[in-house]
Amino acid sequence: MNFQLTEKFINQIQYLIKNKNDNKIKAILADFFPQDLAEIISNLNRSDGKYLFELLKENSSEILIELEENLREEILSSLTTKKIAKNLIENLETDDAADVIQEMSDPMQKEVLSQIKNQEHAEDIEDLLSYSENSAGALMGKELIKVKKNWSIIRCLGEMRKQAENIDKVYTIYVIDKNEKLLGTVSLKELLITPEKTFVEKIYNKNIISVSTDQNDEEIAKIMNKYDLIVLPVVDKQGVLVGRITIDDVVDVIKEEAEKDYQMASGITKNIESSDTILKLTKARIPWLLIGLIGGILGAKIIHIFLDPKDSLQLAFIPLIAAMAGNIGVQSAAIVVQDIASKNSIENWKYKFFKELAVATINGLICGIIIFIFCYFYYGNNETNFAFTLSISLIIVMIYAALFGTFIPLILNKVNIDPALATGPFITTMNDVIGLLIYFLISEYMFL
Amino acid sequence: MNFQLTEKFINQIQYLIKNKNDNKIKAILADFFPQDLAEIISNLNRSDGKYLFELLKENSSEILIELEENLREEILSSLTTKKIAKNLIENLETDDAADVIQEMSDPMQKEVLSQIKNQEHAEDIEDLLSYSENSAGALMGKELIKVKKNWSIIRCLGEMRKQAENIDKVYTIYVIDKNEKLLGTVSLKELLITPEKTFVEKIYNKNIISVSTDQNDEEIAKIMNKYDLIVLPVVDKQGVLVGRITIDDVVDVIKEEAEKDYQMASGITKNIESSDTILKLTKARIPWLLIGLIGGILGAKIIHIFLDPKDSLQLAFIPLIAAMAGNIGVQSAAIVVQDIASKNSIENWKYKFFKELAVATINGLICGIIIFIFCYFYYGNNETNFAFTLSISLIIVMIYAALFGTFIPLILNKVNIDPALATGPFITTMNDVIGLLIYFLISEYMFL
Repeated sequence: MNFQLTEKFINQIQYLIKNKNDNKIKAILADFFPQDLAEIISNLNRSDGKYLFELLKENSSEILIELEENLREEILSSLTTKKIAKNLIENLETDDAADVIQEMSDPMQKEVLSQIKNQEHAEDIEDLLSYSENSAGALMGKELIKVKKNWSIIRCLGEMRKQAENIDKVYTIYVIDKNEKLLGTVSLKELLITPEKTFVEKIYNKNIISVSTDQNDEEIAKIMNKYDLIVLPVVDKQGVLVGRITIDDVVDVIKEEAEKDYQMASGITKNIESSDTILKLTKARIPWLLIGLIGGILGAKIIHIFLDPKDSLQLAFIPLIAAMAGNIGVQSAAIVVQDIASKNSIENWKYKFFKELAVATINGLICGIIIFIFCYFYYGNNETNFAFTLSISLIIVMIYAALFGTFIPLILNKVNIDPALATGPFITTMNDVIGLLIYFLISEYMFL
Repeated sequence: MNFQLTEKFINQIQYLIKNKNDNKIKAILADFFPQDLAEIISNLNRSDGKYLFELLKENSSEILIELEENLREEILSSLTTKKIAKNLIENLETDDAADVIQEMSDPMQKEVLSQIKNQEHAEDIEDLLSYSENSAGALMGKELIKVKKNWSIIRCLGEMRKQAENIDKVYTIYVIDKNEKLLGTVSLKELLITPEKTFVEKIYNKNIISVSTDQNDEEIAKIMNKYDLIVLPVVDKQGVLVGRITIDDVVDVIKEEAEKDYQMASGITKNIESSDTILKLTKARIPWLLIGLIGGILGAKIIHIFLDPKDSLQLAFIPLIAAMAGNIGVQSAAIVVQDIASKNSIENWKYKFFKELAVATINGLICGIIIFIFCYFYYGNNETNFAFTLSISLIIVMIYAALFGTFIPLILNKVNIDPALATGPFITTMNDVIGLLIYFLISEYMFL
């Protein structure tokens, strides 16, 4: 039921795939939810993952939307547009279908859309694709149940029966006028307890909240959260009911929003995950490190205004070393904490360690080279030794601080302490102190 | 519809309350949602707020659960337990009722429970109160619709009609056996499209996710988020269906969890809001500041290992000043960012400013006194002047940094830039530099 993926389980599946024991695989995975199947596929190597995806035909469309974007793209690229349209897109609800198609190239989008047999489904998806990203229109689905205000309850039940055939989950019944304008809702409860001959207009609820297609998804998240809504109707400029947004899509918006704030507070500019490429991770982290570097140089300048530069070159860069150690450590810790919070899958810690080492080394080298060039030109030829000491110290401190920031949350998590405790001031303080020690040790024993 | 509270509106309501123009108030607020009414009440002074609460009798139970805890307690304390039971608790769903009663003293809880007329409702609430905080049992509600597997569809519809009378929203229909053990669910869609004489056991879905009463709310949030669930059934140790958790309650858990991580990363130990008392805010922030202080002292120690103490007392405490400026600034910025993200209500910025000033001054004084005492005893009588300079600098830097951390996000928000940009490295870097400048200026011109 609440499935927890283990390495043993993955090995078993791998073994069965190797031996092409399809029936056994199907039997084992028969009652698994698409989310769990997607998790299993993500933890296999690419060819095994594709094999399993093909094998689980019945659930493949639901699995597809649960996969990470990179993996989904790879799987889709190995299929014909006809297969994509028929086996995958046709079985998806419009909002999920639009999300998947959105990621394709323009010509591929057109091809897939033209291959969809159900004309209405294709049109609905095309409509959803026309809205700008992060708007209500892009977030909504077209599947909903609507009844007219002049219908009787018994007619409603009959019409709902027809409409429901194409809909997985019935959330709310919307009441519209003859021009399809949204008037209100009628609850299932009302339909159940009201005599069959009553007209809808007698019982429906006029006081409802709706949003327009161009409203921003963060606003929508706020509204749904504030008013405790499970589903929210979307209307166009004329007030015509065009779709509905369900809370599960908005939960993702709320989570992403919170994560974005958390990442920004930790000095990471883009929404990244530990599974991203080294280049992407480096790019997301370097801007704030460079700001820290500039801050450190300004700090050195201030110290020099008050002290004789010759006596204090080494001392003037204390704030720079401390700040850089703190900043990179917080970044590393934040990525690990976020990773622990969001993933259920098996983690490959060795791989993470080397990745973090690579990212820290690249960022360290960039900052080290910049500070060397700065000192060389600013303080002149006589201070080459110092420039060298400082940049070597900075690189080593940054690598150390990044690894420290990575390991502390992992260790806390192992001993069941909230890893978030390791982010922020704790990492900053520890890295300040140890960073200073490294700086002085290198200055003392290597060059000065 | 999407109501936005303005100061003008509050003034109008205040004016009407003063003139006891009850009918006009009722007319204006007739179509307002409880969440908006609660917001209006929170923005009035206490006596006006109570007046309005009493006036809005019809919605009072729904308003009550939307109020902040302090205000709710105050309003409840002015009512008799009989009124609380009859007018408020009886109209609430069991989970909300239990949340409200939970906050009362033990004797008051007993009194209120004994005054509830509907015996079953009272028992359900008592049952919910027996579960430990943050468990599925404490989060769930008892309102649900259940049918037996050996019933026909037509019998189901009849029984559902009876059960639905006491339930506001129908989410899912649960299928149970004769011992009330949870077997599965049947969707409304299935009920709508299946011939009336079919038995439930032919159509119900056996493969469902449930949780037990003692499961932790963070786990529940993960499960509901992962499997995109709107509602999740809760079973006891025997597998008997005892309640259900709805996604709106879990969204709050998800948000709180994300905010907790954010606060921890910003150096705040407890879940606080800007509306909390100065004492509570101070207490939540001082622990990390003290850790920063210890780090700064250790940093000074390291610098002294490598340099002659006499020459460098002032320099040795550069990391301390920089770290403290960074830490307190990040705390202040995080509180403001969180505030901006979560509130729709009118903000009183002047009040906020003075509150932040008070909190920063108290924390600054605590840290300043500690560092003075440390220096006095550690470095001896000859350095009293320095000890004085350092502690005065620290206090001023901390007050400055806190105000800077408060204002930058506010200004960014005013010019429509994401205020979260101001937290983390930006504040840290700016405060490092300006903090150093303040430290040197004070050292230079005041004492040394």
